[in-house]
Amino acid sequence: MISEPSVFFREVQLKHPLVHHITNYVTVNDCANICICSGGSPVMTDDRNDVEDMVRISNCVVLNMGTLNERTVDSMLISGKAAKKNGVPVVFDAVGAGATGYRNEVAHRIIEEVRPDVIKGNSGEISFLAGILGSVRGVDSTGKAEDTKDIILDLAKKYGCIVVSTGKVDYVSDGKEAYELTNGDDLEGCVSGTGCMLSSVIGAYVGANGVSVGPVVAAISAFNIAAEHAAKGSKGPGSFKAGLFDSLYSLTAEDLDKEAKIREL
Amino acid sequence: MISEPSVFFREVQLKHPLVHHITNYVTVNDCANICICSGGSPVMTDDRNDVEDMVRISNCVVLNMGTLNERTVDSMLISGKAAKKNGVPVVFDAVGAGATGYRNEVAHRIIEEVRPDVIKGNSGEISFLAGILGSVRGVDSTGKAEDTKDIILDLAKKYGCIVVSTGKVDYVSDGKEAYELTNGDDLEGCVSGTGCMLSSVIGAYVGANGVSVGPVVAAISAFNIAAEHAAKGSKGPGSFKAGLFDSLYSLTAEDLDKEAKIREL
Amino acid sequence: MISEPSVFFREVQLKHPLVHHITNYVTVNDCANICICSGGSPVMTDDRNDVEDMVRISNCVVLNMGTLNERTVDSMLISGKAAKKNGVPVVFDAVGAGATGYRNEVAHRIIEEVRPDVIKGNSGEISFLAGILGSVRGVDSTGKAEDTKDIILDLAKKYGCIVVSTGKVDYVSDGKEAYELTNGDDLEGCVSGTGCMLSSVIGAYVGANGVSVGPVVAAISAFNIAAEHAAKGSKGPGSFKAGLFDSLYSLTAEDLDKEAKIREL
Repeated sequence: MISEPSVFFREVQLKHPLVHHITNYVTVNDCANICICSGGSPVMTDDRNDVEDMVRISNCVVLNMGTLNERTVDSMLISGKAAKKNGVPVVFDAVGAGATGYRNEVAHRIIEEVRPDVIKGNSGEISFLAGILGSVRGVDSTGKAEDTKDIILDLAKKYGCIVVSTGKVDYVSDGKEAYELTNGDDLEGCVSGTGCMLSSVIGAYVGANGVSVGPVVAAISAFNIAAEHAAKGSKGPGSFKAGLFDSLYSLTAEDLDKEAKIREL
Repeated sequence: MISEPSVFFREVQLKHPLVHHITNYVTVNDCANICICSGGSPVMTDDRNDVEDMVRISNCVVLNMGTLNERTVDSMLISGKAAKKNGVPVVFDAVGAGATGYRNEVAHRIIEEVRPDVIKGNSGEISFLAGILGSVRGVDSTGKAEDTKDIILDLAKKYGCIVVSTGKVDYVSDGKEAYELTNGDDLEGCVSGTGCMLSSVIGAYVGANGVSVGPVVAAISAFNIAAEHAAKGSKGPGSFKAGLFDSLYSLTAEDLDKEAKIREL
Repeated sequence: MISEPSVFFREVQLKHPLVHHITNYVTVNDCANICICSGGSPVMTDDRNDVEDMVRISNCVVLNMGTLNERTVDSMLISGKAAKKNGVPVVFDAVGAGATGYRNEVAHRIIEEVRPDVIKGNSGEISFLAGILGSVRGVDSTGKAEDTKDIILDLAKKYGCIVVSTGKVDYVSDGKEAYELTNGDDLEGCVSGTGCMLSSVIGAYVGANGVSVGPVVAAISAFNIAAEHAAKGSKGPGSFKAGLFDSLYSLTAEDLDKEAKIREL
């Protein structure tokens, strides 16, 4: 049971972990800013000549394949492997898995060759990954599956990692425990990149706390509670987004413990 | 005559068309968000290995040469041709045409090789294109021309497409009819990428309604009415931009029909 | 002494200088928008086929190595050299100097091969540069140094340029005079890219006024006074950032002269 997510929150505020991102150019600015607002310290760089040095001074690496290309996929592999070699945790956001053959191939390579510590996607992406990785019985290659809990448990067990499936309800498992998280607001779906931003926040929490299910759950709760706060004062997606940064920046340990809706499955 | 632009608006809200963008990295985030606020579903990807699969599941392709480079121009050509082959409409925003030789060359190639369904630019870019494409008598290569109506009519006729010329007043023609649109606010000129954002909204409308002058006119009207609404509550370009997303998201069919200033020329 | 920074402010509003950027994809949108709000006219392009034509019509070139890669470093060198050949001022923002070997190598090349008119970084980056460029006695390669004034004076003298060191206090020197600037707000540190944005504003001021210490000081003062104004009405980093654009856009010559905290050292 995770009764005090604020334990993990406090570590982030204390350590300001350096989170190295190789991410897409659509939402990169929002990722940098939300990482700061969560307590982290973001850095973005993706040249193969630059990433290994950057990994060495980082507390976490976030790989996001939103706008993948040959050059950056190459850098993701270099960066991810260097991170694992140096004991730096790797968060992988499998954006668009299932949508194209190239994305499926790249997701497969990153998962098999890097072995990320956290694999994250929306429920469709995670189901699809489970299918092509053959980790779940009963999930065919179209990504259809009945039970998110089983999918993430099995996928996490097979790869010895934490799996996050996002949507109206979010699910987290480390292969042993599984959690259902129900904070959040529908306006998150009206802003491009809330999923990417969440990965950056997870990066900050894992960077400060190490790899375990607690920090990942705390990161998701913090982000989604901030979204609830932001939604209250907003007139639509534009003011909501500005408010999301304000709200996460202003979130207190008390808010987090009091408002987090975390249920062990 | 277009008396009820809301007809096209309603289709976008109903279908949430998938709009595949290959666009510049300056305004790409705003393009994604405004596309959502208009009712569309944006996707951005530009690797040559990824674009053909993405085109196949898309309802419209938006090509924008704001920060063109050899790699993405190549992907634009592949994507544009695949779209035309699959009956997916293509919107081309000729950002910076006339400013450099490379831009002129690329614009020329995209127009001749892809044959976009909608060609869009500001009045200077469109005049310039008309000049180098030789579609209008009396427009020299410096892009000077007297009559926007003639330019867009002739260019649209020559290429069998819809031409959009933006500025304080916007013009649209399909080679037969020509329209003058007079909604909008001066603050649009103080935010980078309002032109790019408009292309994304046009993409959503064309993706949901098919290629004809009505959806294009409706998209421009919706965007510019939202800008008028946003300007009212704003203190400058920063709050105006956040408000633009809110306003387009909140725009109703009634607003659109009542406030649109559309005049057939 | 710089008693009336508004002299330089007025030139920017009058001339709307075209500022060509080769910059990082994290903060590029904010750079474009803040450049507009300062009175400048931004353009971003980075393909080697495009940059020389763009430089020819520009009033200033801003090079920023935030997300450098081989392709864009190549374009920065082409662009920077073309600018110098054509008498167009070059501002170089040495983002991340000291963090990786590749960044140090690229910073060194740009400074030696382009000879920028303005070299800018935060105090750590500038100290580091001074160390590897061997321009200051007593600065070792770890970038440690006691006296920012001596560092920027010596670096500016050695390269015949203006050096800007940013932080809680900002310093500017042209190798003869040195200034200490104390406007600004702590929230600037909670928004990704305020340093990059400042470079774009410096680009606008240098583009309109030519290269001298006055316009650079005025640009920094204008930006930081706007930050102070924005901080007053903000609830956190999100609303602060929107407010920063509004405030710089609304800044008057009178505000600037009255509120600027400039001290000659």
